Amino acid sequence: MTTGARRRMGVEERRRQLIAVALELFSRRSPDEVSIDDIAGAAGISRPLVYHYFPGKHSLYEAAVRVAAEELTARFVEPPEGPLGARLARVMGRYFDFVAEHGPGFSALLRGGGAIGSPGTGAVIDEVRRKAYEQMLLHLELDAPGPRLELVIRSWVGLAETTALTWLEGRRIPREELQLQLVHDFMALAVVTATTDDETAALVRRIIAQEPLDGAFGEFVTRLLSILDGTPAGKHDMWSG
Amino acid sequence: MTTGARRRMGVEERRRQLIAVALELFSRRSPDEVSIDDIAGAAGISRPLVYHYFPGKHSLYEAAVRVAAEELTARFVEPPEGPLGARLARVMGRYFDFVAEHGPGFSALLRGGGAIGSPGTGAVIDEVRRKAYEQMLLHLELDAPGPRLELVIRSWVGLAETTALTWLEGRRIPREELQLQLVHDFMALAVVTATTDDETAALVRRIIAQEPLDGAFGEFVTRLLSILDGTPAGKHDMWSG
Repeated sequence: MTTGARRRMGVEERRRQLIAVALELFSRRSPDEVSIDDIAGAAGISRPLVYHYFPGKHSLYEAAVRVAAEELTARFVEPPEGPLGARLARVMGRYFDFVAEHGPGFSALLRGGGAIGSPGTGAVIDEVRRKAYEQMLLHLELDAPGPRLELVIRSWVGLAETTALTWLEGRRIPREELQLQLVHDFMALAVVTATTDDETAALVRRIIAQEPLDGAFGEFVTRLLSILDGTPAGKHDMWSG
Repeated sequence: MTTGARRRMGVEERRRQLIAVALELFSRRSPDEVSIDDIAGAAGISRPLVYHYFPGKHSLYEAAVRVAAEELTARFVEPPEGPLGARLARVMGRYFDFVAEHGPGFSALLRGGGAIGSPGTGAVIDEVRRKAYEQMLLHLELDAPGPRLELVIRSWVGLAETTALTWLEGRRIPREELQLQLVHDFMALAVVTATTDDETAALVRRIIAQEPLDGAFGEFVTRLLSILDGTPAGKHDMWSG
């Protein structure tokens, strides 16, 4: 019994090691460009031994995607305390940490996984998006929002992905700038929907009422007004009423 | 020679017919759920004859995706005349026409294609996104925007995809509302980036200066101000300065 238990532990440890090695390789090269030989070599074991733990590259890839997804969703967790803008900014900081650490693997996965993507990895991505959505509900103190407010939140989660993917292409914009921009983007998308949806309008008013003037949202509004001040005098009325 | 030319025409015609049949089936069911037998049956030919024109389901799927992509990019084309907001609203209308017509096929493709997705179909999606980006450059009268303005445009293209995918899940929001919302979303994302990027700020000022007060953007600003008027008096200063 004891020996059997030890052997099972050993299998799990070896599987975890191979997943960690694979994730490390996927952080430097696209998964399509990483072979089982590369993984065996980096783990210091033989190619047949890798196949002993994972029946094929697809199964190792899917296991690695699941471990990475757990790591990412753990980073979404933020205590629901203090100004909302500051909370979202901290979550965006940890999101970009993850994106920066997993670079090519993150890009390949979200671009459909290339030849190695599968319905299984697609389901893992959907689950991560659902968890991001649920964390937002928690912070926004919402239970079951209507379809318009749900769309605001889910489309913002998608916007964070697109922004991160574009950033990874050449890292031409400082990530700190994009992290804060995404916080402001959330408010901007909410305000657009608030112009036609009462539930979203009530949320926007509640956020504005709770947000400090020197916080992530207050700073944004100050900058916004400085842009609008620069518009031709005759057109400025359009924004200021 | 004449007979040979006719036979080649016949092959192309048959291929086009099979692609049209496949796209029609993908508009009602996910491509993963459509078999070669279904396609053969709908086309009124035998299963082996389908394989004569396409070596397998993947090759027929990829050909169908290419035809659908051409159809979609043709709908992006809009004369660069009149107010920008109205132009974008017309393009969004045609985009949602396409999305509504291709429902399950569109969803499956953008969610990685399930078991039938491939690097080839991923490349077609990237090409459609690139063409959407180029059309936007044309309308915004931009040649080679800096990385921040490029990100605004590309992330808006992604936002249109996410919005369309979410709409397809239950069609719970009238599509006309989402088409106009996406026009406003573009302006909102541009304004956010304009608060830190001079090039985007100049573009926003140019759009505001050219846009009629009763156009798609003018109407949005009017609604926006009515929301902000509803905020508690003490906090209203935050937005109006």
